[in-house]
Amino acid sequence: MTDTLEVIGDRYTLPLVRELMYGFRRFSDLAVLLGAPRTVLTARLRRLEDAGVVERVQYCEHPPRFEYHLTGAGLALVPVLLAVKAWGEQHLEGCEETVVFGHRCGAPLRPVSVCAACGEPIRPGEFTVVGGTHPPTSPPR
Amino acid sequence: MTDTLEVIGDRYTLPLVRELMYGFRRFSDLAVLLGAPRTVLTARLRRLEDAGVVERVQYCEHPPRFEYHLTGAGLALVPVLLAVKAWGEQHLEGCEETVVFGHRCGAPLRPVSVCAACGEPIRPGEFTVVGGTHPPTSPPR
Repeated sequence: MTDTLEVIGDRYTLPLVRELMYGFRRFSDLAVLLGAPRTVLTARLRRLEDAGVVERVQYCEHPPRFEYHLTGAGLALVPVLLAVKAWGEQHLEGCEETVVFGHRCGAPLRPVSVCAACGEPIRPGEFTVVGGTHPPTSPPR
Repeated sequence: MTDTLEVIGDRYTLPLVRELMYGFRRFSDLAVLLGAPRTVLTARLRRLEDAGVVERVQYCEHPPRFEYHLTGAGLALVPVLLAVKAWGEQHLEGCEETVVFGHRCGAPLRPVSVCAACGEPIRPGEFTVVGGTHPPTSPPR
């Protein structure tokens, strides 16, 4: 089983997807933006490639040079990242809105997570576990 | 400035919030579930406490024992986590739906990220940067 958070839940991976979303695609730019050691960045890009989130595209033949593009799966992660961003701006102290996105409807982009079936915003306490295998044991209370 | 991903974007933090969401609140349970070294878990819990995402609640006086609860801000992170989960199930190979949530409307919970203004699902390519200070320089192309 692949665990989503094992693929994207580390210090550099979501920030990496964020920079790709902003249009930075070259290794050297990404290394500077993330402050990541080159070996770590190489490993994270490779893992995202293996997971089908990122693809390596050659943009120069001599010398061979590559840039990194978000795939369809990677682009689908963008709304999720925007939800993370919106949460931080709303709930973390001192976390200003550093980038403002506009939606094509003309309004500033404010993502809201809604239930696909009824369209209502998803609020804590309004959903329950109805099946599946995790958690491995019942919570203590 | 606080960066959201600096608070929640590491290997243990989102999984930690996930386990708290499932109702695991005690240090010893969390340590087992996450496979995290105790020093790391202590540091992550402390950081989430400082950020107002988690609060420490005493449940036993002699000996003094504490459990960890999600605050309002922590609970607000839950829909975001559900969006991460849904993305993985849809886009990562071998990432089955291990837990099924039901929404209070009766349907299985499928979170969709929509624009708060127009209610349309947020899709890649349908929003643009309209202001702000990041990225620090323009993307190369």
